[in-house]
Amino acid sequence: MAAPANTGILVSSESIARPFREEIIEALKSSSKKPRLVGILSTSAAPSRFYAEFTKKTCDDLQIDFVLKTVGAASPEGGQEGEGVEEAIIECNEDNNVDGIMVYYPIFGGTQDQYLQQVVSPYKDVEGLHFKFHYNLYHNIRFVDPKTLSNPTIASSSNTAAAVTEASEGTVKSILPCTPLAIVKCLEHMGVYNKILPYGNRAYGKTVTVINRSEVVGRPLAALLSNDGSRVFSADIDSIQEYNKRSSSTTGNSRGFHPHHVVHPCSLSLQECLAISDVVVSAVPSQNYKVKTEWLKDGCICINVSSDKNFEKDVREKASIYLPTIGKVTILMLLRNL
Amino acid sequence: MAAPANTGILVSSESIARPFREEIIEALKSSSKKPRLVGILSTSAAPSRFYAEFTKKTCDDLQIDFVLKTVGAASPEGGQEGEGVEEAIIECNEDNNVDGIMVYYPIFGGTQDQYLQQVVSPYKDVEGLHFKFHYNLYHNIRFVDPKTLSNPTIASSSNTAAAVTEASEGTVKSILPCTPLAIVKCLEHMGVYNKILPYGNRAYGKTVTVINRSEVVGRPLAALLSNDGSRVFSADIDSIQEYNKRSSSTTGNSRGFHPHHVVHPCSLSLQECLAISDVVVSAVPSQNYKVKTEWLKDGCICINVSSDKNFEKDVREKASIYLPTIGKVTILMLLRNL
Repeated sequence: MAAPANTGILVSSESIARPFREEIIEALKSSSKKPRLVGILSTSAAPSRFYAEFTKKTCDDLQIDFVLKTVGAASPEGGQEGEGVEEAIIECNEDNNVDGIMVYYPIFGGTQDQYLQQVVSPYKDVEGLHFKFHYNLYHNIRFVDPKTLSNPTIASSSNTAAAVTEASEGTVKSILPCTPLAIVKCLEHMGVYNKILPYGNRAYGKTVTVINRSEVVGRPLAALLSNDGSRVFSADIDSIQEYNKRSSSTTGNSRGFHPHHVVHPCSLSLQECLAISDVVVSAVPSQNYKVKTEWLKDGCICINVSSDKNFEKDVREKASIYLPTIGKVTILMLLRNL
Repeated sequence: MAAPANTGILVSSESIARPFREEIIEALKSSSKKPRLVGILSTSAAPSRFYAEFTKKTCDDLQIDFVLKTVGAASPEGGQEGEGVEEAIIECNEDNNVDGIMVYYPIFGGTQDQYLQQVVSPYKDVEGLHFKFHYNLYHNIRFVDPKTLSNPTIASSSNTAAAVTEASEGTVKSILPCTPLAIVKCLEHMGVYNKILPYGNRAYGKTVTVINRSEVVGRPLAALLSNDGSRVFSADIDSIQEYNKRSSSTTGNSRGFHPHHVVHPCSLSLQECLAISDVVVSAVPSQNYKVKTEWLKDGCICINVSSDKNFEKDVREKASIYLPTIGKVTILMLLRNL
């Protein structure tokens, strides 16, 4: 009596990454100078080293000048985990030959890593992790005046001058945090964003569960998706919240400073959220965490963002589309920012 | 045969707070305008409401204009925990009648609270929680040019103008995070800082254990104390680190950007650290956490910074001086910043 098991499509991040790669190659052709990206590796963690090698390979393919700077536990001389990372960032901030900086996290974890993310000059923050970019995202501020992006250093010495003159004139698009942006690009590719709907509302009608609420992935992603019209359940260990787009009658006060979305606590369980979710994005940094396939809505779209596998092996028996990794897309978003 | 039990001195934070209170009263006498401090309370947490009432009382005594703004779960209409807190901060940032902003944490906890701390304009951040102040502390940058303190908003609109012209000309002392600064003031009062030693090195020769390594209390405190010459053990749940002042031969690179202290992992246990510590500062937000009296070095100085009691009842049998709370000193540091 049971219907034969379906098998959802397995999407590779390469297929999503390709058009962006071509776009970057085109842009570089018309550029006079080869941009330089510096990666700062300060820990002995295998995934970080892996990711650094992957950045190098991607940059080589694209003819981008990638320099890996190893300090602390990652340096040939050895050292402690994270030793010298702050000094390395500051040197890159001040070096006019460096166009972009990428730091391999986690280093110390939590709020101390968030501190380091503020040390990276916003002019060189290709990952979009600086507070100012998150602030703009939460407030749906899509364009910035580069002159107002100040250097994080506020010593009486004025090291800011060089950085400021480097920035181009006029208003530019605010950088979005890399990983959430890559996920949105994946969702566009997989048809979740409906191009018939007006720009800024193309995820309208979709229900999405995002498992993880970090400041790096989960919370900005929930904000982005709800800004674009979808209903988002944001789940972490302790609680579930619901993000919705603010209705037009309440969108923005006179200064346009309201967040574009509203957040409510949600009384649904994760199982109940998954049962009604068209899309499930999981980014839990744990080998033991698995989203139960039996809880998924039939035909949903699943994206694994973690370096661990957050979905069970049989996920495609329920999911219509499964994307097991977004790494290649993330790195291209980063190079695009560069 | 046992020596009679000693009883250490119990110090009240009031005795430490008094000279600062008098200093503030004097300063206000020569000021033409009554400064306005706005407290933003957004949760139903009893300690936060308590602290807000205490701020109000202290401000009333000092003739400072304190306005309590309640939003979300703290407002009379009710609401969710933390609802509207970001909007409330932004309104205060923009209101020229507001001189200082104080937000009652924890709200969402962790990195999301750290995000909110960046939303508060550094010009009005009386608590000294903005990234830039932490950056200056870690780099021992003691003076800032107020013109380089930019508004956190980087929209194309230029809301920064008002804030910038408010700041006075020339170089001013960088604000230090309130709680760590209050602890240093307590240590000065209790004779840990030796006035005979040169300024900037007055804690030289002292060994201090700091239990907690948050970005708000433990890490900046460890940095401050080691910048001032002491050997600091910084303990959290996972690990112990040792902070030491950088030796003069390595202090600062050509740009003066090295942190003033060096941090090493430490192979001592907490018990071993306590056995050699002249000062023990504990700031663990838990009712269950207790520093074992039997582990303390005889005659040490103990300071409890947590709203819970982190020391055992018999702490004064080992400690020569015990300071059970620093609340009154913290709030005066904050009003001094105002």
